[in-house]
Amino acid sequence: MRRVLGAAIFAMALSASLSAQTMRAQQPAASPIAEDFRPSSLNQPGQEYPQVNSQGYARFRIVAPQAQDVHVTLGLGGRGGTTLTRGPDGAWTGTTEGPLDEGFHYYHLTVDGGTLNDPGTLNFYGSTRWESGIEIPAHDQDFYALKAVPHSNVQQILFHSPSTGEERRAFVYTPPGYEKTPAKHYPVLYLQHGWGEDETAWFNQGRANLIMDNLIAAKQVQPFIIVTTYGMTNVIHPGQPGGLAAFKIQPFETVLIDELLPYVDSHFRTLADAKHRAMAGLSMGGFETKLIAPKHLDKFRYIALLSGGTFSPEEVAKVPDFKAKAKLVFVSFGSRELDNGKTRGFPGVPPSDPAQDVERLKKDGINAVFYVSPNTAHEFLSWRRSLRELAPLLFRD
Amino acid sequence: MRRVLGAAIFAMALSASLSAQTMRAQQPAASPIAEDFRPSSLNQPGQEYPQVNSQGYARFRIVAPQAQDVHVTLGLGGRGGTTLTRGPDGAWTGTTEGPLDEGFHYYHLTVDGGTLNDPGTLNFYGSTRWESGIEIPAHDQDFYALKAVPHSNVQQILFHSPSTGEERRAFVYTPPGYEKTPAKHYPVLYLQHGWGEDETAWFNQGRANLIMDNLIAAKQVQPFIIVTTYGMTNVIHPGQPGGLAAFKIQPFETVLIDELLPYVDSHFRTLADAKHRAMAGLSMGGFETKLIAPKHLDKFRYIALLSGGTFSPEEVAKVPDFKAKAKLVFVSFGSRELDNGKTRGFPGVPPSDPAQDVERLKKDGINAVFYVSPNTAHEFLSWRRSLRELAPLLFRD
Repeated sequence: MRRVLGAAIFAMALSASLSAQTMRAQQPAASPIAEDFRPSSLNQPGQEYPQVNSQGYARFRIVAPQAQDVHVTLGLGGRGGTTLTRGPDGAWTGTTEGPLDEGFHYYHLTVDGGTLNDPGTLNFYGSTRWESGIEIPAHDQDFYALKAVPHSNVQQILFHSPSTGEERRAFVYTPPGYEKTPAKHYPVLYLQHGWGEDETAWFNQGRANLIMDNLIAAKQVQPFIIVTTYGMTNVIHPGQPGGLAAFKIQPFETVLIDELLPYVDSHFRTLADAKHRAMAGLSMGGFETKLIAPKHLDKFRYIALLSGGTFSPEEVAKVPDFKAKAKLVFVSFGSRELDNGKTRGFPGVPPSDPAQDVERLKKDGINAVFYVSPNTAHEFLSWRRSLRELAPLLFRD
Repeated sequence: MRRVLGAAIFAMALSASLSAQTMRAQQPAASPIAEDFRPSSLNQPGQEYPQVNSQGYARFRIVAPQAQDVHVTLGLGGRGGTTLTRGPDGAWTGTTEGPLDEGFHYYHLTVDGGTLNDPGTLNFYGSTRWESGIEIPAHDQDFYALKAVPHSNVQQILFHSPSTGEERRAFVYTPPGYEKTPAKHYPVLYLQHGWGEDETAWFNQGRANLIMDNLIAAKQVQPFIIVTTYGMTNVIHPGQPGGLAAFKIQPFETVLIDELLPYVDSHFRTLADAKHRAMAGLSMGGFETKLIAPKHLDKFRYIALLSGGTFSPEEVAKVPDFKAKAKLVFVSFGSRELDNGKTRGFPGVPPSDPAQDVERLKKDGINAVFYVSPNTAHEFLSWRRSLRELAPLLFRD
C-alpha cells in the first residue's frame, strides 16, 4: 500500500509558495505571558507537554539530556519556530515568541539535526509524513467539539481498484441514525484533503465527523454521507519536473469516478444521482475538485473549493451546461491567505479576486457563495469553518 | 479524551515481568547476512528505512548529523536492540545482531538520551504511547495479507458512557456483505487489546479485519461482527501501588456490559443473546475476559484467553452453571511464552500448565481448545494466529 515515491521536489515547490502566501509581520506580545498553560488537547494519553495557554502561546518540553540542539518548527500559523534550552534536569523547554493562530498546527522537532516528532503528542499525516500536531483552542471551538449528541460512524472501507491494481482505502461518514432508518437513502459529499495529506486528514485534523454531528443535532443540516479517499496528490512521475505542472488528474479521476463512486453507491444507501452528490476539496483537493467536477456534472452538481482556487465567469463559460446544471459553487479562504481580498498566486497560477469572481457568477445567475475564515491561514481551522458554512448549503433541492 | 494518568509504575511492573518471561538465548547467525534488504511493509509512504531481509534481520537508518549516540530498542521478539553508527553523510545506520522473530515488533529510538520514534515508519499504540513498528514477513503471512477479496468495513463509533461521563470510542468490524443483507443479523465477538494498548491495536497491529476477510472468503468462518474498545487497563488509581494488584475490573465491566453492549445491539444488526456473543482478549485483555465473561454467562457463552492466563477445572468449578452454559474455552500462547509447556508466572500469578488445564476441562465435558503459535513470543503474530484458530470455533450452534 505504499504509494508515494520521490515527492520531495513537489513538496518544496508547493510549500515554498504557500509559505510566501501566509507570511505576516510578527507582532510583539501586548501583555505578559499568562502562566495558565495546560496540556494540548491532542497530547498522547498522560502526556503533560506540549502545553498551550489562554493567550495562544505554546510551550514545549523534550527530554534529551545529551542533545546539543533541540528546536521546534511550526506550520504556517505557527510563527516559524521555537528554540528550546536545556535545563539542569536534561529536559529542553521553550515557549513560542508570540501567540499562535487559533486551531490546528503541524510541527516537528529537530534534535541534533534529525527531523523527529514530539513524543508528547499525536501524529497527523501532512507534508507526506506523520507529523506532530498541536491545537490552540479557538474562540468558536464549540462547533467541532466532541459532545453528548447522537454520533455518526466513520467507516474504513477497502475498495478494489483495477486501474491501480490495488485494494484502496476510503473513509465513509454515515450520519447519526443511518443504521436505524434502513429505508432511507442519503446524498453524498466527496471531500478531498490537500497536498501531502491523505484520506485520514478530514477526520483527524478536520474533525469533519464532529462538525457534522453537531450541525445535525442542531438541525442546521440535513444528514448526508461524506467520503474521503487518497487524492494521489503526492505522486511525482519519474523523469518529470516537480511542481503543480507535473500533476496529472487522470489517474485519480479514474479511481474516483469509475471505481469509488460505484462502490459507494452499491455498498451504502446513497441517493445515486448528480443532484445528490457534491465534490469539495481543500488546497490541492480544491484544484482536483475544479478539474474533475465541472467535467462530470452528470455526477456532481455541488462544487466547493476551500483554499483551492476560484471560479471565474470566463472559466465557467467554457463548461457546457454549467449554468443549467451546477447547483452551488462555494469558494472559501482563510483571511491570512488574501491580500486586500486577492489571492497571492504562485508560479503558474496568477493572483485572483475570489470575492469578485463569486459576485460576477451570481450576476450570471449561478448560485455562488464566498466565505472567509477570520484570522486563519492555509490551515485546518479555515477548512473546519468552511465545512461548517458549506454543509447547510448542500442538497437543498 | 485523555484517560491515562501516571501509568509509569504499572508499566514498569508489567513490562519487567513480561520481559523475563520471554528472554531467550541469543543464537549466532548460521549464515552470512543476505543483502536483500527491502523497506518494511509498515514504512511511511516513500520511506526506504527501516528495512528487513529474507532472513529476518532489520536494518535502520536515522539522519541526525550532530547526534552523539543513536540506538534502537526493540520489543520482546526483537533481541534487545541495535546500536547505530554514524557515517560520513551524517546518517546513523545499523543492522540487528541476529534475525528477529517473524511478525510485528514495537520499537523506538534513543537519540542523545531522548526517547523518540523512527520517522521512517508508522506508529502503533503500545506501552501507553504511539511507538514505531516493524514487520518481519512471516512464512504464513498470507492469512493476514490484504487481498482482492470482498472486504469488511471497520467503523469508528462514539458511544455515550454515563459511568465515565465521556463519549467513548469503539471500533466495529462489520463483515463483507453486511450492507447488502439488510435482513441478516450477526453474532458478535468482543475483542480486547493488551496492557499499554488501546482499541486500535487489533486492527492496526493485529490486522483482525484482514484475517477475518480472508477466512470468510475461504468459507472457513461464518461472518460475525467484532467490537474493540479501550479496556481502561492503563489507569493507576492515585495512592495505590502499581502492578496488576491495583487494577480494578469494575469500571470497565460497567462500560462494557451496561453501556457498550446495549449500544452495539441497538445500532448494529446483532443476534443479541448469549449464545451469539463471545469475549476474547490478549494479555491483560485476557485477564479482563476471565474476570468478566464467567460472571456474565447470560451475555457471553464463548470465552478466549490469548496469552492471558488459563482456566483450571478448580476455577471453573466455582462458577455456577459454567459447564452447562459455556460453549467454548479457548486458551493460546506463543511458544516462547512457555517453558516445557508451562507459563512462567510473575509476582502474584503462579506458573500454570495451560495444556494440562485444557485437557482436564475436556475430561470434565467442557469444549476447551488449546493452541500454541510456533516460534513467537508475547507479540502480535501469536495473537493474529490465535484469532485465525479461534474464529472458526465460534458460534457453531
